[in-house]
Amino acid sequence: MKPINVGLLGIGTVGGGVFTVLARNAEEITRRAGRPIRITAVADKNLEHARAIVGDKARLTDDAFSVVDDPEIDIVIELIGGYGVARELVMRAIANGKHVVTANKALLATQGNEIFAAAQQRGVMIAFEAAVAGGIPIIKALREGLSANRIEWIAGIINGTTNFILSEMRDKGLPFATVLAEAQRLGYAEADPTFDIEGVDAAHKITIMSAIAFGIPMHFAQAHVEGISRLAAEDIKYAEQLGYRIKLLGITRRTPEGVELRVHPTLIPEKRLIANVEGAMNAVLVKGDAVGATLYYGKGAGAEPTASAVIADLVDVTRTATADPENRVPHLAFQPHSLVDLPILPLAEISTSYYLRLRVEDRPGVLADITRILADQGISIDAMIQREPDEGEEQTDIIMLTHQTRERQIDAAIRFIEALPAVRAPLVRLRLENLL
Amino acid sequence: MKPINVGLLGIGTVGGGVFTVLARNAEEITRRAGRPIRITAVADKNLEHARAIVGDKARLTDDAFSVVDDPEIDIVIELIGGYGVARELVMRAIANGKHVVTANKALLATQGNEIFAAAQQRGVMIAFEAAVAGGIPIIKALREGLSANRIEWIAGIINGTTNFILSEMRDKGLPFATVLAEAQRLGYAEADPTFDIEGVDAAHKITIMSAIAFGIPMHFAQAHVEGISRLAAEDIKYAEQLGYRIKLLGITRRTPEGVELRVHPTLIPEKRLIANVEGAMNAVLVKGDAVGATLYYGKGAGAEPTASAVIADLVDVTRTATADPENRVPHLAFQPHSLVDLPILPLAEISTSYYLRLRVEDRPGVLADITRILADQGISIDAMIQREPDEGEEQTDIIMLTHQTRERQIDAAIRFIEALPAVRAPLVRLRLENLL
Repeated sequence: MKPINVGLLGIGTVGGGVFTVLARNAEEITRRAGRPIRITAVADKNLEHARAIVGDKARLTDDAFSVVDDPEIDIVIELIGGYGVARELVMRAIANGKHVVTANKALLATQGNEIFAAAQQRGVMIAFEAAVAGGIPIIKALREGLSANRIEWIAGIINGTTNFILSEMRDKGLPFATVLAEAQRLGYAEADPTFDIEGVDAAHKITIMSAIAFGIPMHFAQAHVEGISRLAAEDIKYAEQLGYRIKLLGITRRTPEGVELRVHPTLIPEKRLIANVEGAMNAVLVKGDAVGATLYYGKGAGAEPTASAVIADLVDVTRTATADPENRVPHLAFQPHSLVDLPILPLAEISTSYYLRLRVEDRPGVLADITRILADQGISIDAMIQREPDEGEEQTDIIMLTHQTRERQIDAAIRFIEALPAVRAPLVRLRLENLL
Repeated sequence: MKPINVGLLGIGTVGGGVFTVLARNAEEITRRAGRPIRITAVADKNLEHARAIVGDKARLTDDAFSVVDDPEIDIVIELIGGYGVARELVMRAIANGKHVVTANKALLATQGNEIFAAAQQRGVMIAFEAAVAGGIPIIKALREGLSANRIEWIAGIINGTTNFILSEMRDKGLPFATVLAEAQRLGYAEADPTFDIEGVDAAHKITIMSAIAFGIPMHFAQAHVEGISRLAAEDIKYAEQLGYRIKLLGITRRTPEGVELRVHPTLIPEKRLIANVEGAMNAVLVKGDAVGATLYYGKGAGAEPTASAVIADLVDVTRTATADPENRVPHLAFQPHSLVDLPILPLAEISTSYYLRLRVEDRPGVLADITRILADQGISIDAMIQREPDEGEEQTDIIMLTHQTRERQIDAAIRFIEALPAVRAPLVRLRLENLL
């Protein structure tokens, strides 16, 4: 059969991986796809670098618009990233009737609604397996593999940088700043690590998964986003003593009142498989009403793992490019006319368990005051550690795990507890999920 | 859109699950599939039982052939199992131009080659997500999600009964027979557990995965199949002392000489995520050249988890039922005209590491004799435990882990070692995989 022609926009780390893997595995990929998939045009600002990878195997240009306007191109791969020119290029590719494969989670999470609407109207596909969890085929699992299920919740380790940092903090007992510096030296964290460590990258990804799990639009603006930069090494240690690990999780859950959409450091029982995902690896846990909990694990970043996802999308698009749009998997898993919108719950309305660390004076009655406040708010205590004060020390730590409760009740309890004279420092509050 | 009509053959545990989940989640499934999927005919020998589940929502019959011959039916779900009437029904459904969804791993592993050929010729689909690892969408991951990769190997915990037994043996230090009896009482093992405990069920499943990973026909007859019924509790204990867990793995690996296809108890490092898969859960680890190792975890059996896979297939088939066959995912992942046949390696030719337990007289020179034999065969030792003999005891256990070697070299070494006068019992040999 006639080859399908692909234009590649941006040949950095991932783009280079796509080019390399597509060349190396051309024979097997063609045997799967039923026709050759070839990159015929590559656009990159750095022509010299691009030339070093591509050689004379494709037309090279520094004008990406010339690729999306090229009538010979069937599919455009957008690997430029960001919201600016990437958005323009994607919209123009759609207008030109080209299918788009993208790894751009930021773009989809923030502007996906208009992009998918435009693609739907023009009858082209937007494929985005590489936007979430790198090489793990989690978009496919959610949209197709679990299509029988009412999906109840998703909890994912979907940012490798922060998982690497948390693993190192636990392993070596080191503070955040030290480990971040090490991660930057090793290339696991970028020079400006804000998007990773403050949870923004994870929030983009959980926003996309939330949309396809529940058949709702992208709601990135309403996500609660909290990173790991203020996480103390001692909380990792206390959590461990209680049988928990701390992971940065992206969580989305359907409740009768609306959808929870949040990213924050989370205690999870060490016995859960996902608690044992270490280093820069990613894992996504999905709870469906029929299948129960399923877990998907692998490399969430890197040239070839991400290329694996981009190329899988190319094969999918190649297979259905000539098909009637109604035979295709809908972008957001549900048919466009049957998307619904569910409200995203404000943080005060979410329900979860909590880890509380209090710095208190070591004298009688303190614990009674604290537990009274919690009881008044209807909050039950599940486990507690009271550390013996060191010799000559007059303050000590109390750590408590609560039963499931509303965030606003914990907020109220914390206000009262922090007002107690015996409580000597702001309370540390982390969320805890049992993931059952 | 017009509903798609499904005929269900066999409404036991899984069939009941399919009926229930399809009814419960009808609205969401229709929103995904784009048209209603309805079971219009059900065949079962036990009409009374079938009536209790189905009521008057579908035509009931005890004649399954009347369903596959029904011109109103678009898709047939075969949940009868076994190789006899199930095969006849599937072939007749194909001849009648109906798509087939089946959970029948035994049938596909042993007679899949003719079934797929017939389906290909008639232009219908055979979907079989439910045949491997229950609700885990592993067939979809292998055929579609990882289509960019040259798949190197697969290792899976794909039989829940044996994983439950092994978990219990380790947790409680109990022998196989005791735990099997308990598993039977709890319903985790069947009255005749042979297919599970002797590895046959796992071999069916790894045969199917091997075919779609490497684009080769089903080669069940050449699989090496070894179960857990002769596994001793002390080997689980010794393995643990060395930092390993013992799991029944289905393994298939592509080598330059051919394909390894085998099921046997296997030591794996306890640090691997898959080593921590406990109870009746399933997990499949897949190594691709681009993506690296990815893991898929979930419930491998049960009414609703298996129904989740059957219904995902129904949605897929519904989507592409009206599509040109060339737009569909090929049955065996590769286009039918580009399947190849690779030889399955005889067991003597596989390469892996080994765990050896020897019962020896506790006297000087024994260890020297044994290590000399291993060295003569070119086998290196990776780790060793020599147990201190108990008071008054004259024999002791030596446990060794070897580097990777050919099975035939270990076979030769074992013959020589067992011929040593100081070796007092048949040597215990288990295989070890590092899964890196």
